[in-house]
Amino acid sequence: MTRILYALAGADRSRPFSPHVWKVVLALAHKGLPYETAAVGFTDIPAIEGGATKTVPLLRDGDRLIVDSFAIALHLEETYPDRPSLFGGEGGKVLSRFVESWSQTVLHTALVRFVLLDIHDCLGPEDQAYFRRSREVRFGKSLEAVVEAGAGEIETLAAKLEPLRVLLGKQPYFGGETPSFADYIVFGPLQWARIVSPKTILAAGDPVTDWFERCLNLHGGVGRSVTAA
Amino acid sequence: MTRILYALAGADRSRPFSPHVWKVVLALAHKGLPYETAAVGFTDIPAIEGGATKTVPLLRDGDRLIVDSFAIALHLEETYPDRPSLFGGEGGKVLSRFVESWSQTVLHTALVRFVLLDIHDCLGPEDQAYFRRSREVRFGKSLEAVVEAGAGEIETLAAKLEPLRVLLGKQPYFGGETPSFADYIVFGPLQWARIVSPKTILAAGDPVTDWFERCLNLHGGVGRSVTAA
Repeated sequence: MTRILYALAGADRSRPFSPHVWKVVLALAHKGLPYETAAVGFTDIPAIEGGATKTVPLLRDGDRLIVDSFAIALHLEETYPDRPSLFGGEGGKVLSRFVESWSQTVLHTALVRFVLLDIHDCLGPEDQAYFRRSREVRFGKSLEAVVEAGAGEIETLAAKLEPLRVLLGKQPYFGGETPSFADYIVFGPLQWARIVSPKTILAAGDPVTDWFERCLNLHGGVGRSVTAA
Repeated sequence: MTRILYALAGADRSRPFSPHVWKVVLALAHKGLPYETAAVGFTDIPAIEGGATKTVPLLRDGDRLIVDSFAIALHLEETYPDRPSLFGGEGGKVLSRFVESWSQTVLHTALVRFVLLDIHDCLGPEDQAYFRRSREVRFGKSLEAVVEAGAGEIETLAAKLEPLRVLLGKQPYFGGETPSFADYIVFGPLQWARIVSPKTILAAGDPVTDWFERCLNLHGGVGRSVTAA
């Protein structure tokens, strides 16, 4: 059985940083499934598995190839039902989509403005050129201008995390007493920021910070297998 | 079997408006459970059922008294497991708590600033005096000052709803193909605004508006049993 997770990394291939790949790393650990990591740079992605994907994560699971973190989580849940559940049933699957929507529109959108240059700086030369070109088209301005415009927003991030903070007053994880894929969805972008950027994103003493630290400790501390920037 | 839902209303007791009571109205309809509504004013609440609660909803279900909309939903799910599920399993229950946290911190907090005076205006004289006194202590300013400060925020509400809008690009309800209690959680505060305030909160053509209209149509259109302000 060959199980390969294609993961995005910078010039140092031992430091995968993609938020979406990290969701899958935690999901695979949650299921207790062994795998090999194949770290690639941005410009390597089109050549993976004969052009199977434009984005990572891509998981090869035996003869199956699955793209997209949520699709991979659904695949793992369906294929390995006897291992710990990632969703806790159908109701958990459909509401994990809301957690994903919240994470993408609120958290990811805020974080990318802080870490965009840090990502650029950790890439190899060819990937740097690709990244600057593609992201400057997407944002309609230079990477430097995006980060400058976002500078004042680190203070507003704490307020945006209030829904999670209130949740954590009721239960220790999105998943209740134990973590579920919804936790890994939100862990992903915070782990991305931790790995690529020396900026302080989460404040000490914040329940969200405590939850993130708990997530870093999960499954043998797999989240700590890459050190903070 | 006596099933009574204590519901908050203004001077016109036929127009219950509490967001949390509306969550329960939809939950009872979802389960297909008949009940009587006992509409009360704010200052009547301490006398209900011999002082059983400081807040509504309060549900009497036979010899059980249950306070709090989420606790009532859990009670209904546990007590009537053969009727349509409100949560879709344990994973749905725990993530409905996140939907509640999001709705309370983002949606409810924004809406209350628009509708605070409208609520006041629909109350009877004794409830008006109680409402003004208690809310002015809570907000630290006059009702008029709260609404004035919130006036510019109707425009920013649309942005705050983006996580739901993105979700609705993937599935028609929080509950997936069919609604679940998570839909009713978010329906509640929007229904509250619809009943007490003539202000336009949701824009025509917004997928969130379309979802809200679908929710109004659910279970025989029970949400339309009270007309818009």
